[in-house]
Amino acid sequence: MILNPAEIEKRSFEIIDQEIEDNIAEENKPYIYRIIHTSADFEYGKITEIHSDAISSGITAIKSGCRIYADTNMIKSGVKKSALEKFGCEIVTSISDEAVAMEAERRGITRSIVGIEKACKDERIKIFAIGNAPTALHALKEMIFNDKVKPALVIGMPVGFVWAAESKEEIKKTGVPYAVTNGRKGGSTIAVAFLNALLYQLMKQSD
Amino acid sequence: MILNPAEIEKRSFEIIDQEIEDNIAEENKPYIYRIIHTSADFEYGKITEIHSDAISSGITAIKSGCRIYADTNMIKSGVKKSALEKFGCEIVTSISDEAVAMEAERRGITRSIVGIEKACKDERIKIFAIGNAPTALHALKEMIFNDKVKPALVIGMPVGFVWAAESKEEIKKTGVPYAVTNGRKGGSTIAVAFLNALLYQLMKQSD
Repeated sequence: MILNPAEIEKRSFEIIDQEIEDNIAEENKPYIYRIIHTSADFEYGKITEIHSDAISSGITAIKSGCRIYADTNMIKSGVKKSALEKFGCEIVTSISDEAVAMEAERRGITRSIVGIEKACKDERIKIFAIGNAPTALHALKEMIFNDKVKPALVIGMPVGFVWAAESKEEIKKTGVPYAVTNGRKGGSTIAVAFLNALLYQLMKQSD
Repeated sequence: MILNPAEIEKRSFEIIDQEIEDNIAEENKPYIYRIIHTSADFEYGKITEIHSDAISSGITAIKSGCRIYADTNMIKSGVKKSALEKFGCEIVTSISDEAVAMEAERRGITRSIVGIEKACKDERIKIFAIGNAPTALHALKEMIFNDKVKPALVIGMPVGFVWAAESKEEIKKTGVPYAVTNGRKGGSTIAVAFLNALLYQLMKQSD
């Protein structure tokens, strides 16, 4: 049994590389393999779609020390903190804010929507990581169409049975750089795996 | 498009009930459906295995105001806090403790193992929720066999390609009440979905 964390990770990525049946472009492997590593679900090899500008645009934003908006506390808690700090980045969410909860209740909509509307007013936020709420991704699409925000990267990986697949199709039509998991699948662990893969690639480059 | 969170959840569970092909025992539906809800992955209908004493034993522990050990910050951050507070429960993890990290480094093992060893010394911890590290579940099995701990419930849902499947087979042989996701799949969102389902069921009972 392997007990060393670095060896476990190395062996895991070797197994993924051996077993994956999809033809993943070399430049996308660090991202898609990490998603498979975090889910043990090879279907992500088929459904993960990365816009050709997504990686470079995301990396530029991180290097500039941007803020990242997450639609869940789980994403915030799972991101590689030391890497964020290294680049002067910060991850924020307003999903637990009392004011957001009250406004959502009053309007009969999800806190995720209100959280996105609020985030779009913060010009330092350049990356949006959506791992839970299709309504968040839908709201973000609306804000982009109405010229309220122009993200450097949208990680659009909400999960679910109601509007999750549709919200990803919507965001792909906005013209902003995106990484999505087509269909119903996704989640906080999936979105944060993509975000961490981006940070790890940058750490490698800057070593 | 449905924007009301309660309606979205209701509709999601209806879709799961319509589409699921596995024959799930009525008493397990709240748990397994919530896992599918959080992953959009119907394979969890096949691989989620719940020991016949797991629910009752977990509920008794929560009612007694136990501590819950999580192997990730993501689980801690995703658990339904208001429900925990209602029952006087607390969720803890030591995965980010500096002392744990240093000991793991020194011994060349994962922080997850050291975290489990430390948690087993805290008698208030009755439930273990493992969503990330197979090595954590393996270490817990060792502690149970050596009579160092007797959990009321082990949520054994680590994910991965190295020893994840094996660690679940190991824990099932210990005789303690368990809920596992057989094979490689699992994760923090999966483990916390099970834990939250347990809390939601209890909230319903106590309403």
